[in-house]
Amino acid sequence: MKVQEIHRTTGRMLVLVCDKGEEPVTAIGEALRRQHVTAGRVTAVGGFQETEIGWFDRERRDYRRIPVREQVEVLSLVGDVAARDEQPALHVHAVLGRCDGSTVGGHLLSARVWPTLEVIVTEVAPELAKRVDPETGLALIAGPGD
Amino acid sequence: MKVQEIHRTTGRMLVLVCDKGEEPVTAIGEALRRQHVTAGRVTAVGGFQETEIGWFDRERRDYRRIPVREQVEVLSLVGDVAARDEQPALHVHAVLGRCDGSTVGGHLLSARVWPTLEVIVTEVAPELAKRVDPETGLALIAGPGD
Amino acid sequence: MKVQEIHRTTGRMLVLVCDKGEEPVTAIGEALRRQHVTAGRVTAVGGFQETEIGWFDRERRDYRRIPVREQVEVLSLVGDVAARDEQPALHVHAVLGRCDGSTVGGHLLSARVWPTLEVIVTEVAPELAKRVDPETGLALIAGPGD
Repeated sequence: MKVQEIHRTTGRMLVLVCDKGEEPVTAIGEALRRQHVTAGRVTAVGGFQETEIGWFDRERRDYRRIPVREQVEVLSLVGDVAARDEQPALHVHAVLGRCDGSTVGGHLLSARVWPTLEVIVTEVAPELAKRVDPETGLALIAGPGD
Repeated sequence: MKVQEIHRTTGRMLVLVCDKGEEPVTAIGEALRRQHVTAGRVTAVGGFQETEIGWFDRERRDYRRIPVREQVEVLSLVGDVAARDEQPALHVHAVLGRCDGSTVGGHLLSARVWPTLEVIVTEVAPELAKRVDPETGLALIAGPGD
Repeated sequence: MKVQEIHRTTGRMLVLVCDKGEEPVTAIGEALRRQHVTAGRVTAVGGFQETEIGWFDRERRDYRRIPVREQVEVLSLVGDVAARDEQPALHVHAVLGRCDGSTVGGHLLSARVWPTLEVIVTEVAPELAKRVDPETGLALIAGPGD
């Protein structure tokens, strides 16, 4: 267990609603920066008309990109915000539902919203800091001893 | 981005446990009304013995109904509460797990709980208001300028 | 509806990051005990290299065990903490994403983390208590009248 400490809610929650056609990873990141939210929990539901999700390939140390080119329900968007180089870094995973109820999911790389994406971010303090993990090249939330 | 403002936790959380056989959309809605919770984040886990989920059909401007007639684990129920005509409107999406671990999911229309559904609602302030989107006919969370 | 009462956030949030190779159910349980967190909401994302999930078999009154022996993205881990015999009992369901984006999920029995699991627990008060349901043998969150 790397980090194991008590954070506190600041009481601040960022409620975001993405517009039709908007790219949510960029839009949420910009809102987090504008509001100086660098640590917290993220959940969202809504719909996407086009999505790119990823599965982390251990051999290649990179995401395998999985395009989803159809209208899907965003069944869950769950993740967190942490600080990387003092900027908020969003880490969210998505489960998407197709027209027959079948599902597909991965690390959210990019998407196009339709008709809405309702996002709730709960801020915590102190800040969560990320550092680059040498084995994977990924920026992971770091512990106090890192 | 339609709404982008800081809400605050009120500190109130509604913890609900649905009984065997109960219809959760109605039961959660009634509890929200009784407790005057009109804005917040919803998460839940449990099991359903029968479920109807939906995928929003852009052409027909209505949900395509997908019945799931088997015992499933409720792997996630994620969503929000907002006010529509001053009454709480629940918007939750479900991912369900079958006996072989395969999954199915959509917008939760109705279900029958078995053996339990453990629901947590975190209230936020100020209120989140919904308005009908003319293109889809759906009630979506509205922004300050709407 | 068994429980239907207003709980309050204590303001405490436990932010946990599991190490590579760690078993998360045990590790999270130990952290909850050390910090005396016996009631709350749990969400997490990350990756597992090996997982065992379960589907509750009504006839056998026990979980059917579903092994997942491949690297998966943890698309969502959603659930709660309640007290059983005065000790924190974790109840979390997982949705996992394979290399092609297909998903599998169930009640989380055990797993091995790789490369990380970022867990956020929000504490609520008063305590949520569990009791054994005679029909299923499962420990479910109990109501005030139970």
